[in-house]
Amino acid sequence: MTQAWRCLRAIRLTATSRCFSSTAHRREIRDLADLPARVHPKVKETSNHDLLALQWPSPPRNILLVRKDDDTEVQTALLEYVNHIRSSYPDIAIVFERYVAEQVHHNFDFPVYAPLSENSNALYQEKIDLTSTLGGDGTILHAASLFATAPRVPPILSFSMGTLGFLGEWKFNEYKRAFRQVYVSGAPSPLKSTDDPDTSSASTAKPGALQTWSNIKGKSMGHTRSSRILMRNRLRIGLFHSDGHRLPHEPPFAHRDHECEDIFALNEVLLHRGALPHLANITILIGSPPHQRTLTTAIADGFLVSTPTGSTAYSLSSGGSIVHPLVNSLLLTPICPRSLSFRPLVLPANTPITLRIDGSNRGKEIEVSVDGVRRQQGLKAGMEVRVVGEEVTKPGEIGQVADVVGGVPSIVRSGGAADGEDHWVGGLNSLLKFNYPFGEDG
Amino acid sequence: MTQAWRCLRAIRLTATSRCFSSTAHRREIRDLADLPARVHPKVKETSNHDLLALQWPSPPRNILLVRKDDDTEVQTALLEYVNHIRSSYPDIAIVFERYVAEQVHHNFDFPVYAPLSENSNALYQEKIDLTSTLGGDGTILHAASLFATAPRVPPILSFSMGTLGFLGEWKFNEYKRAFRQVYVSGAPSPLKSTDDPDTSSASTAKPGALQTWSNIKGKSMGHTRSSRILMRNRLRIGLFHSDGHRLPHEPPFAHRDHECEDIFALNEVLLHRGALPHLANITILIGSPPHQRTLTTAIADGFLVSTPTGSTAYSLSSGGSIVHPLVNSLLLTPICPRSLSFRPLVLPANTPITLRIDGSNRGKEIEVSVDGVRRQQGLKAGMEVRVVGEEVTKPGEIGQVADVVGGVPSIVRSGGAADGEDHWVGGLNSLLKFNYPFGEDG
Amino acid sequence: MTQAWRCLRAIRLTATSRCFSSTAHRREIRDLADLPARVHPKVKETSNHDLLALQWPSPPRNILLVRKDDDTEVQTALLEYVNHIRSSYPDIAIVFERYVAEQVHHNFDFPVYAPLSENSNALYQEKIDLTSTLGGDGTILHAASLFATAPRVPPILSFSMGTLGFLGEWKFNEYKRAFRQVYVSGAPSPLKSTDDPDTSSASTAKPGALQTWSNIKGKSMGHTRSSRILMRNRLRIGLFHSDGHRLPHEPPFAHRDHECEDIFALNEVLLHRGALPHLANITILIGSPPHQRTLTTAIADGFLVSTPTGSTAYSLSSGGSIVHPLVNSLLLTPICPRSLSFRPLVLPANTPITLRIDGSNRGKEIEVSVDGVRRQQGLKAGMEVRVVGEEVTKPGEIGQVADVVGGVPSIVRSGGAADGEDHWVGGLNSLLKFNYPFGEDG
Amino acid sequence: MTQAWRCLRAIRLTATSRCFSSTAHRREIRDLADLPARVHPKVKETSNHDLLALQWPSPPRNILLVRKDDDTEVQTALLEYVNHIRSSYPDIAIVFERYVAEQVHHNFDFPVYAPLSENSNALYQEKIDLTSTLGGDGTILHAASLFATAPRVPPILSFSMGTLGFLGEWKFNEYKRAFRQVYVSGAPSPLKSTDDPDTSSASTAKPGALQTWSNIKGKSMGHTRSSRILMRNRLRIGLFHSDGHRLPHEPPFAHRDHECEDIFALNEVLLHRGALPHLANITILIGSPPHQRTLTTAIADGFLVSTPTGSTAYSLSSGGSIVHPLVNSLLLTPICPRSLSFRPLVLPANTPITLRIDGSNRGKEIEVSVDGVRRQQGLKAGMEVRVVGEEVTKPGEIGQVADVVGGVPSIVRSGGAADGEDHWVGGLNSLLKFNYPFGEDG
Ligand SMILES: NC(=O)C1=CN([C@@H]2O[C@H](COP(=O)(O)OP(=O)(O)OC[C@H]3O[C@@H](n4cnc5c(N)ncnc54)[C@H](O)[C@@H]3O)[C@@H](O)[C@H]2O)C=CC1
Ligand SMILES: NC(=O)C1=CN([C@@H]2O[C@H](COP(=O)(O)OP(=O)(O)OC[C@H]3O[C@@H](n4cnc5c(N)ncnc54)[C@H](O)[C@@H]3O)[C@@H](O)[C@H]2O)C=CC1
Ligand SMILES: NC(=O)C1=CN([C@@H]2O[C@H](COP(=O)(O)OP(=O)(O)OC[C@H]3O[C@@H](n4cnc5c(N)ncnc54)[C@H](O)[C@@H]3O)[C@@H](O)[C@H]2O)C=CC1
Ligand SMILES: NC(=O)C1=CN([C@@H]2O[C@H](COP(=O)(O)OP(=O)(O)OC[C@H]3O[C@@H](n4cnc5c(N)ncnc54)[C@H](O)[C@@H]3O)[C@@H](O)[C@H]2O)C=CC1
Repeated sequence: MTQAWRCLRAIRLTATSRCFSSTAHRREIRDLADLPARVHPKVKETSNHDLLALQWPSPPRNILLVRKDDDTEVQTALLEYVNHIRSSYPDIAIVFERYVAEQVHHNFDFPVYAPLSENSNALYQEKIDLTSTLGGDGTILHAASLFATAPRVPPILSFSMGTLGFLGEWKFNEYKRAFRQVYVSGAPSPLKSTDDPDTSSASTAKPGALQTWSNIKGKSMGHTRSSRILMRNRLRIGLFHSDGHRLPHEPPFAHRDHECEDIFALNEVLLHRGALPHLANITILIGSPPHQRTLTTAIADGFLVSTPTGSTAYSLSSGGSIVHPLVNSLLLTPICPRSLSFRPLVLPANTPITLRIDGSNRGKEIEVSVDGVRRQQGLKAGMEVRVVGEEVTKPGEIGQVADVVGGVPSIVRSGGAADGEDHWVGGLNSLLKFNYPFGEDG
Repeated sequence: MTQAWRCLRAIRLTATSRCFSSTAHRREIRDLADLPARVHPKVKETSNHDLLALQWPSPPRNILLVRKDDDTEVQTALLEYVNHIRSSYPDIAIVFERYVAEQVHHNFDFPVYAPLSENSNALYQEKIDLTSTLGGDGTILHAASLFATAPRVPPILSFSMGTLGFLGEWKFNEYKRAFRQVYVSGAPSPLKSTDDPDTSSASTAKPGALQTWSNIKGKSMGHTRSSRILMRNRLRIGLFHSDGHRLPHEPPFAHRDHECEDIFALNEVLLHRGALPHLANITILIGSPPHQRTLTTAIADGFLVSTPTGSTAYSLSSGGSIVHPLVNSLLLTPICPRSLSFRPLVLPANTPITLRIDGSNRGKEIEVSVDGVRRQQGLKAGMEVRVVGEEVTKPGEIGQVADVVGGVPSIVRSGGAADGEDHWVGGLNSLLKFNYPFGEDG
Repeated sequence: MTQAWRCLRAIRLTATSRCFSSTAHRREIRDLADLPARVHPKVKETSNHDLLALQWPSPPRNILLVRKDDDTEVQTALLEYVNHIRSSYPDIAIVFERYVAEQVHHNFDFPVYAPLSENSNALYQEKIDLTSTLGGDGTILHAASLFATAPRVPPILSFSMGTLGFLGEWKFNEYKRAFRQVYVSGAPSPLKSTDDPDTSSASTAKPGALQTWSNIKGKSMGHTRSSRILMRNRLRIGLFHSDGHRLPHEPPFAHRDHECEDIFALNEVLLHRGALPHLANITILIGSPPHQRTLTTAIADGFLVSTPTGSTAYSLSSGGSIVHPLVNSLLLTPICPRSLSFRPLVLPANTPITLRIDGSNRGKEIEVSVDGVRRQQGLKAGMEVRVVGEEVTKPGEIGQVADVVGGVPSIVRSGGAADGEDHWVGGLNSLLKFNYPFGEDG
Repeated sequence: MTQAWRCLRAIRLTATSRCFSSTAHRREIRDLADLPARVHPKVKETSNHDLLALQWPSPPRNILLVRKDDDTEVQTALLEYVNHIRSSYPDIAIVFERYVAEQVHHNFDFPVYAPLSENSNALYQEKIDLTSTLGGDGTILHAASLFATAPRVPPILSFSMGTLGFLGEWKFNEYKRAFRQVYVSGAPSPLKSTDDPDTSSASTAKPGALQTWSNIKGKSMGHTRSSRILMRNRLRIGLFHSDGHRLPHEPPFAHRDHECEDIFALNEVLLHRGALPHLANITILIGSPPHQRTLTTAIADGFLVSTPTGSTAYSLSSGGSIVHPLVNSLLLTPICPRSLSFRPLVLPANTPITLRIDGSNRGKEIEVSVDGVRRQQGLKAGMEVRVVGEEVTKPGEIGQVADVVGGVPSIVRSGGAADGEDHWVGGLNSLLKFNYPFGEDG
């Protein structure tokens, strides 16, 4: 890899020309399709068995920025953040969702990228190296949904703003440090810094060419540790007709060409009675044929199959236990079941679960939602949702480096006393007010 | 009252002519408005402080029959039941809801009654002496909803068929005994029986005239105890604009002339996020100005304010305690609250509770449902639901006879070991499977 | 009653001599038995139907002070409080529990009272006009236990110190205002004040003589509202052998002469497996013979029958609903039941509940505790705890004055925005952290 | 391995002499220490990823029988079972706990074994090849406790009798088939049967010699599948003084020589207030130094750290979720916490959890129990229980054979429709009455 660093200077010079050569390119939206292919990060097993160390084989180039809508604080932060990335990491191409790009591109004096053709989800998963979100958990869920058809999701760096952020741990005012740490993860350390300001905005000569870590403009990289990653496992979800054929998914979760393959969810899939205040009858089956068994036919407002990540979302409100994201499992949580004896279940992640709309619901449609996004078309009697935890391959031993397939690599916050730790316990206390003590001053 | 019984025979003769004089009247739907005014029953305090003894000042005449729809078993039972009432109690006028009358009247060779004008709810409460239902709890709720604007509801005799009947305790095969017992409650006991079959179908000379107990056709009345009544208290519900003006209710709960007065619910009023899988923000206030206090602003799928009767309905599914119908209280139960620390509350029945749609819901409409019937129009930010338990006046001392104002007088099942007892404990075990024991043989 | 006020001045003069005539009487513990008989307060129904107005027919004289042990802050406060009462209301006799009197009497230069004979509980209920507690809920529970055999409990004025006080609402720094308000409740208002310091420490000539409101030393009484009272209903508890004979209670709940009559609890009665980690089998019966029904035989760590007051105590921790103290009811809450389908129940206060130790427990003893005090001797197979809500008679109409029988008259906090309101809703929020919101700033 | 089978016949002849040579050996208890060393089974990964196939390298010889006490049905079954094993598998040595051996040995006309020296637990884990239990879950827990100090536990074959058996799935009437299947698991299939009755009771020539599968007396082995094993992971538990030194465990969990090492629990470790009805204050820490974090200080009746196996035991009663035994996790479940916001947690099995007795408990001792067995000596302020899931190594790929270290290998029931399946889902329904439907007919 050292080879890459050597050609640093030369490349930077050309890179400059890419971005600033022509004012014509400014305030412009270019097609994401034109960017070079994605850089797949590697991960290294750490001694803290729970977290993995991020390792870029070459620096990330295509950064997707996802923001919460209709929030001026977020909007202001976005501009500051993008300008910082652009000036400090000039090699980086800034990508937005198309509608966002249209709203914001005139704020920047450089071109931004967005998927300009139809198959936006497919493009994201081919091109995006890193996603960064500004907003709350809903923003992270939305970002993840853009990769709902992808077995390999780029790392997500999330800043919580405006609303409760249980999933995204970074404060916005840490953005410079946070971004730098992610950027250099895997780079030979310390990066040699150059003092020559002229050469500091290096980038690749042309899209697709090998890229290396740039010197961060005007600053030495210093010594930095790799970012730590918490792999959040997802659900794999298929929808089926009573005759066994697949039903299509709807955007933002859709495959291209209306393919009806499985999609992935970060929090949960929900079946719910919807607007009509009458109960849903749902049969729950465990396992896959020929080992499939009926667990129960249940009458309820709805059902959730949730990931451990989702255990602090809707499942929590429905009375489910709180499950650490690294417990390899699925939660089956009923919503207002018409039974005194339905207790939430935690099953192994590899357990196939089928939720079948019972015949007794007759005309009634049962609504299905994924990560808080409702499918326009509800499910009718006989239709099924089939769910299983996604399969994840990880490096097995400390120090081993590997590709990760499966899961959403979430960059955990570093710094302070609990540097590089998993912040889950802290979040229980500070955000969920877990076991909040009785008494006056609480 | 003995005066009434003396003229028994004469009246019967004329009564016959009312119903059978002309074949032209058969298979006909007549207007409920033509029937004589309602007979208000009295109640007597019993030594079993929980239950009241039913006392008709004169025999009930106008019986409203409410059935579960689309159920052939129920339909068959209805015909049998109506024919029995008609032949054994020929004085009685059989009333249906209009759409039911249209479906069933051709099965009978005598006229049936239904509200043929608009103000059906108003008519029911002016005319109906007794309601009898065939179906499940939903049927009883529907029957009660026809009296949702009435401070004084006629007694309800309910037969459970087809579905779980937690509210209606009688089995259909007990219908003869059950009906007779209700009919004669308050009659001098034993009624003198006549053996003359010709005279056995007595009734009133003309609508509105004083009526007395008929000899039940071909049978001596024997000695019977008064029916026992469990008073089920209701909620009083008003809907309000943010400017304090009232919103109208919708059928079946509507007042005549689109009056926006309070209505009554037997189970609960529900605020719910509806079809959109996003949380509702609702502020809950306790008490009425100037003593009103904010309890909390809560984020949840929804909220229930429930009667004790409703404590075994939706509130149960949402984790509420089971409250005996005679505990004079209201339940405030959240549905999937986004909080670890929202515990269901039980408040005194006379506590005014206000649920205000919080401004933060912005455009989103929150759905409001009463006893399982959803209002077409949802509530917007600032709108309020105001709820309080209805006021009920009852006789205070054992043996005292009084009018009852408020509550739904529900006729409890008699016979067997626990004759005249409140069957609530039994229902917990046999229907709700309360504390169902672990183990093989269940 | 005006007669009483007229002889004010004369009486005061003699009263002085009672207390200060001889230094020999200082630092002395006198027998509570020597004090005059108790003054039973009356209550008046208020427009705020929930709370009653306290009305002394003549000023309270014998004040029992109950404090939390082993707490120096409480101890310091106690001295300040007693000295204030003594100097401002010199007619008042200060009573302590005997062991407390022995610890504290040397701090005072006047005699204090305590029960010096055996039957202390009997004495308290004959002599005490008002109880005042310094400490937490445990202190209030203890104070109530001293009246566990009394159908009529004197009002309790509680200051919370040191630990969470959900039951006692006053802050200690309000003690002067609080005490004065209680003291003058029912006095003609405004009391005529005299400026003559010599006459300001009036009291009764001799114990037993009629007493009247003293002018509070050196101060005009001004205009004060009556104190507001929240009546907290208790449980009535009996313990029975399998042969139907009663078992005795143990101190502090014991009757005199080891009588085995019912006792009263403010929070709850608890049956529990105790130290052995094996389940208890308990049969629960509802009603009294011949209408008694078996609710269930349950296997659990234990069971609670709780008052609404106790609903925020142990029952809360066991998953019970929060029930407002004015809901006239009993809670049946299981502790760790070996069942998926045991839901807490709320029953009418007049429901007799029997908890019978099942034969299957064989040798094992089940522990029984009342308000957190464990009976030394556990219960064996066949033994029963029988519980029912105490009967309470209250004035029925606004403005009506009456004796109250039953319940613990708890003086609610006045002042501030919610003057004279029931502070229950406030306590839920400030102390129990009810529906504590998620998010950063807590 | 085929070598072993070849010398079958010769060995059998000598083996016979071991057991029947002398009547002097009958009705005798011999020392378990005299038996040959244990045969460690292997396991093979199956296509049903959840279950492992049992593989004996040579036939099991030393069978420990554990029974429920004081149950005549169990006692009768035990005799029948032992006599069957003895006559059909004459090579097998029958082992009992010492007190059981003393009670039962006179029923048998052959010697039985028991640990006659002190270190019984150490002996069991050196000698026992297979444990078989007759009784309920308590019996299985007791059997597991005999291996509480062993990293490698022999397989357990459990017959449920008398009480609910959620852990033991076999019915006693299946004992012949069940035992045979376990016995031959791993044998070349089909075993060659000999028709020579004289040679059918083969056994080893002398203790310690190589042994092979015997022909089951008078019967051909036919073709049998290997038994399927569900590995139930345990907790590793240490008790510590406030100064960091270890506290000893007590029997049946004790190590030899009062060593204070960790022990293993199958269900849970419990901290509880015990007999005194006052709350326990416990600080919960997650992780191990230097990454240890305080989760919370909680006030409760107690706390459970439970395995997934234990999730259907005490944790269930305390409101915990039901966790499948193959979810590699720990449950932290509070018992009656004095908080509205303590939700049960599910943590990765490798999370170290520390429960520290808070200083505020002062003199009070907190009781500690393991799998339902209470330690005589409670824990005082400052003392700690440290818990982590045991580490388990398993074969990674289908068809691979390996030793298992860690976990209790539990033989699942075979036969019928769901042959060789994990019966957990079935148990939820049939035993725990999971989601038992409302309605009349149960
Ligand atoms: N009653 C409830 O609790 C409901 C919860 N939801 C949850 O909302 C999610 C969608 O989120 P939004 O689009 O933002 O909807 P939203 O605007 O309705 O907010 C959902 C809330 O859940 C929080 N949240 C989301 N994921 C979380 C997680 N994994 N852990 C902890 N908190 C989490 C968010 O911070 C936000 O406070 C769904 O996946 C579902 O889990 C949706 C509907 C009802
Ligand atoms: N998740 C839930 O538990 C939901 C419950 N409901 C309840 O359904 C009621 C409307 O009933 P339907 O029109 O029949 O709707 P439905 O056909 O959806 O059935 C509701 C179920 O609740 C039972 N039920 C109704 N009132 C009851 C009571 N007081 N005690 C015990 N069980 C009771 C009925 O027997 C039926 O099994 C609503 O008032 C609401 O309480 C409505 C929606 C969801
Ligand atoms: N796991 C639990 O929650 C347990 C609760 N208790 C409760 O403790 C009571 C005895 O109190 P202490 O002698 O002070 O014992 P304690 O010193 O163990 O404290 C009990 C706690 O309960 C609170 N408390 C008591 N009564 C209350 C009420 N009515 N509403 C709200 N909070 C209340 C107290 O403020 C204190 O925080 C018992 O009557 C029982 O209700 C007793 C044992 C266990
Ligand atoms: N309130 C409760 O639920 C309590 C439960 N226990 C449990 O009892 C266990 C000890 O058992 P025993 O000595 O038989 O005591 P025991 O005679 O008190 O019975 C405990 C009950 O728990 C069942 N059980 C035990 N382990 C189980 C499991 N893993 N899954 C499902 N059910 C299970 C048994 O079948 C029996 O019904 C402890 O490990 C603890 O889990 C102990 C005390 C109280």
